Amino acid sequence: MDYFSSQISRLIEELSRLPGVGAKSAQRLAFHIIGMPKEQVESLSNAIRDAKENVHYCKCCCTLTDDDICPICKSEKRNHKQIMVVENTRDLAAYEKTQKYEGVYHVLHGAISPMLGIGPADIRLKELMVRLEGDVEEVIIATNSSLEGETTAMYISKLIKPTGIKVSRIASGVPVGGDLEYIDEVTLLRALEGRVEL
Amino acid sequence: MDYFSSQISRLIEELSRLPGVGAKSAQRLAFHIIGMPKEQVESLSNAIRDAKENVHYCKCCCTLTDDDICPICKSEKRNHKQIMVVENTRDLAAYEKTQKYEGVYHVLHGAISPMLGIGPADIRLKELMVRLEGDVEEVIIATNSSLEGETTAMYISKLIKPTGIKVSRIASGVPVGGDLEYIDEVTLLRALEGRVEL
Repeated sequence: MDYFSSQISRLIEELSRLPGVGAKSAQRLAFHIIGMPKEQVESLSNAIRDAKENVHYCKCCCTLTDDDICPICKSEKRNHKQIMVVENTRDLAAYEKTQKYEGVYHVLHGAISPMLGIGPADIRLKELMVRLEGDVEEVIIATNSSLEGETTAMYISKLIKPTGIKVSRIASGVPVGGDLEYIDEVTLLRALEGRVEL
Repeated sequence: MDYFSSQISRLIEELSRLPGVGAKSAQRLAFHIIGMPKEQVESLSNAIRDAKENVHYCKCCCTLTDDDICPICKSEKRNHKQIMVVENTRDLAAYEKTQKYEGVYHVLHGAISPMLGIGPADIRLKELMVRLEGDVEEVIIATNSSLEGETTAMYISKLIKPTGIKVSRIASGVPVGGDLEYIDEVTLLRALEGRVEL
């Protein structure tokens, strides 16, 4: 990129390292940023640095937060006896958007994957077990419906069962609005197995 | 976004202001950035700020650069008697990628658009006319093939003709690899009008 001067090339290069940002869109973003008002650029640059500097794991549920304890763990409105286990903070956000779940969360930051060499000790399971020593009634396992997610769910359920705490798994089935014709066989079978009486 | 703490929400908000970045991808980018090594985050944050601070218009061709004079205008290998007029630095980059054009450029930073209230005085035309007082043999107009680009091309050609300098316009026609069946009528007509003898 000799035709761009060094600072522009550097910005394009940095941006193109982000996920889903190819060479063309990095260039587009770079020129957009250069054309933005100075205060907005400062604000973007600072937000990036500040988030990295100040965000860490919540001491209770391990989600990403800039407080010691995240807003959900701190909230008195939530049911702290019900813990939903998710793989990452994005999954937590997805459930929060439903605005219906009133329990709290536990973020594993990964899933067990023998293929990738990720074992139970590499995810935040120990922290979950410590929480279960308190007053907990139910653990809802909401890991992904992938091989890794299922493996993790099985592992956690076997780990918790002996403690007598109720363990559940979110339902697998046909997505709402889904067209049966386009849904894979495994999901269809799961939906059949999980059928509920009307 | 109460479920994210303030620094994460702020970063997502800043990122979602960028073109082509929706709420979902802003969230994905934000968590990716938080998970990146600290040095990489610093480097991205600084690249954004530095580019905005140091990039300005080249004193000669008006492209974006962090030098006084851009690398192309400085180069002795380029033919400074041939000036290609483009709408913005991205268009310059597109022609540079061909690696065949050996002249220099002039970047207008826009195109004449009566609809948007952009007149000849709002684009870098005055700077082009000053350059033409020097030793220039040809001006190649490579503005976009849109209404605004064509208007600008017409305007510039009328402005330059009296000076006796050769003015040309890049060809309009069927893109290489293009399937005639899917090309619009105006382009097909242009391709016919611009036919060359074999």
